[in-house]
Amino acid sequence: MSLLDLNADQLADLATNVRRDYDELKSRGLKLDLTRGKPSAEQLDVAEALLELPGKGDHVDADGVDVRNYGNLKGIRDIREIWAELLGINLDQIIAGDASSLNIMFDLVSYSYIWGTNDSERPWKDEEKVRWICPVPGYDRHFTISEKFGFEMVTVPMLEDGPDLNAIKELVKDPSVKGMWLVPMYSNPSGITTSDEIAKGLAEMETAAPDFRIVWDNAYAIHTLGDSFRTSTNVLDYAEQAGNPNRFWYMSSTSKVTFAGAGVSFLASSPANLAWYTGIAGTRGIGPNKVNQLAHARYFGDAEGVRKVMQRHSDILAPKFRAVLDILENRLGQYEVARWTEPEGGYFISLDVIDGTASRVVELAKEAGIALTEAGSSFPLHDDPNNRNIRLAPSLPPMAEITEAMDGVATCVLLAAVEKLGA
Amino acid sequence: MSLLDLNADQLADLATNVRRDYDELKSRGLKLDLTRGKPSAEQLDVAEALLELPGKGDHVDADGVDVRNYGNLKGIRDIREIWAELLGINLDQIIAGDASSLNIMFDLVSYSYIWGTNDSERPWKDEEKVRWICPVPGYDRHFTISEKFGFEMVTVPMLEDGPDLNAIKELVKDPSVKGMWLVPMYSNPSGITTSDEIAKGLAEMETAAPDFRIVWDNAYAIHTLGDSFRTSTNVLDYAEQAGNPNRFWYMSSTSKVTFAGAGVSFLASSPANLAWYTGIAGTRGIGPNKVNQLAHARYFGDAEGVRKVMQRHSDILAPKFRAVLDILENRLGQYEVARWTEPEGGYFISLDVIDGTASRVVELAKEAGIALTEAGSSFPLHDDPNNRNIRLAPSLPPMAEITEAMDGVATCVLLAAVEKLGA
Repeated sequence: MSLLDLNADQLADLATNVRRDYDELKSRGLKLDLTRGKPSAEQLDVAEALLELPGKGDHVDADGVDVRNYGNLKGIRDIREIWAELLGINLDQIIAGDASSLNIMFDLVSYSYIWGTNDSERPWKDEEKVRWICPVPGYDRHFTISEKFGFEMVTVPMLEDGPDLNAIKELVKDPSVKGMWLVPMYSNPSGITTSDEIAKGLAEMETAAPDFRIVWDNAYAIHTLGDSFRTSTNVLDYAEQAGNPNRFWYMSSTSKVTFAGAGVSFLASSPANLAWYTGIAGTRGIGPNKVNQLAHARYFGDAEGVRKVMQRHSDILAPKFRAVLDILENRLGQYEVARWTEPEGGYFISLDVIDGTASRVVELAKEAGIALTEAGSSFPLHDDPNNRNIRLAPSLPPMAEITEAMDGVATCVLLAAVEKLGA
Repeated sequence: MSLLDLNADQLADLATNVRRDYDELKSRGLKLDLTRGKPSAEQLDVAEALLELPGKGDHVDADGVDVRNYGNLKGIRDIREIWAELLGINLDQIIAGDASSLNIMFDLVSYSYIWGTNDSERPWKDEEKVRWICPVPGYDRHFTISEKFGFEMVTVPMLEDGPDLNAIKELVKDPSVKGMWLVPMYSNPSGITTSDEIAKGLAEMETAAPDFRIVWDNAYAIHTLGDSFRTSTNVLDYAEQAGNPNRFWYMSSTSKVTFAGAGVSFLASSPANLAWYTGIAGTRGIGPNKVNQLAHARYFGDAEGVRKVMQRHSDILAPKFRAVLDILENRLGQYEVARWTEPEGGYFISLDVIDGTASRVVELAKEAGIALTEAGSSFPLHDDPNNRNIRLAPSLPPMAEITEAMDGVATCVLLAAVEKLGA
């Protein structure tokens, strides 16, 4: 029965029970953490063999070049081929870097800011104002980059099939709107996958700024929670066909495939965009860690090898996500005090609680020893206008901790709700 | 006998002989390369064991943290401790990054440009002019960075004990002079080591700009060509004692210790500078490749382990440098048409030929199939005002190629000289 349908006595009874549950929760002295999308030790163990690769005597790439020496800004073909196949992208449109795709995203923005993109009339630093489209809820580290560069962040809602294309089409009529963040598959935090239609619309739409860019951060391209893999939309082809070849900076990485922060990152884009990027990256350095790239290529073998690895991750992660969803349903379903996503992949469950109570839920959980991602953190400037969204990250803790933490979170959601209703 | 002391007939005879030598050289169809300071395959083999490290089951750092997961912008203590001891720097003043110290140098300049340093009155992009001191001859990739950011590069000569301190002291009276490049030990390309006195002078001097920085790129700190190791000057202490704690950005890396471009880089500086850097680097990313850092720590064991590795490099490199110097002396010594450095460490020999002939020497060598670093490349904007300097990099080719190439280079130096004298 919805909380809103309870009469005063029923609500008071519930409040008493919930407060008792919460006191009991606090008395347990928990220390649990559902904050960040980190892989668990069990997941990291999947790639344990990588710790001894490429192995003695194995240091020559597919082009016959010694990976132990300087050079090759584009990264080695061995790993680029595997990733190109996985994403369905032409080999000559993808380059492999060091461990962090976030590093590359920051650099793309930074280079554009200082020198302008290959399509810019002037460096972005010399624009009176730069505005940036942020689908919400979204990835906090994206928003932190645009904040750091002083861009005015404009939000658009994530709908069921991706970001609100109509809202975006309106916004890009403004030439000061220079870019947009997007996690197109199993988005952070809502798990939404942008449809081919929306992707095509983003590729085709006219923009007032000639140097408008979409950071297509396909961080979870192969991070299924099921037994099959979605096909990644080839937005580079859509953009090329639409006459907007330079629209997308397409990102990917192995961070949640092998080791987080110690893998290989990828930038896929038009030849012109890649030439622009490597032109500056070649002043910043001589080339990426090719030994690590070869180790990864050896570990995977081929694209099918990557999918096998990801199936093992799915086997570990899916039960954790199931457990979170079951507890949310069992504890909160009847009261209609929350909505949550049921993602088919990725690292997060997005939980919407009663408007105005998200920060209170996080506070209550913290007092009970359960760390949740700060309320509002999936919004630019940490400002969730409805104070309703909480990002749940079930990957890191072991199953027993997840169930205990989520049961506690459910209690906190209920308590915040009854408080809000004045009970 | 000096070329200048030859009478017309003697000079004509020499010219005939040299032209015959050069024609013979060209007829050999060589394809040799003395351009870049890359380690040889034999050197890279020294660290072959690293290719299978850290090894299965070894993924926890000295602080008990799993290196396979996200985090730790400062890098792991295991490798920081080793490098701190090698350089004689406090552990809390050194952080470990990804493979390339050049990447960090670029970022330091870039962050200062966009946001200003921790001591800046405004971002460097908002200064009317930024000037940058470049000791010459110097490292081309340094100069390329300052050029890319539009800084006006001002040269000072490298003297026998380091850069010309008096000239620098004059320049830094100008508040638009914001920084300076320096390779303090076995400098690129002249092999000069900056004395403690000059280092102290640089630490103590007054500068008009409150945010003046010296990029102290100690790339060759342990790259001896002998049997012993110099002690690195602790400029951070000098700067602290002089009341200029934030003056130095101190760089180091394992690039020519283990694998070039696949090692670990280091930034050492004051706590305030490190806090400023990590404050921005923390928006750029989550942390460095700690798996690779642990692999390096395991490979070295300790600071003494690093020295043992470097002794093996010295054993490989020293005979190559000896061979180059012997050929220069035997072929050119009597004619007094060139001067060269005899470095005790590092990767380069700096060759000065007769003024106005360096580019001709490089051209002649190229026509004979011997690639030399472009003339002028050790100067900002590739502009060697005397057209006299050539950087020789003997590390990469095997010994037989070095002797053949250098013998050819000597012929080219002589030919350019007799041409210059009109013979």
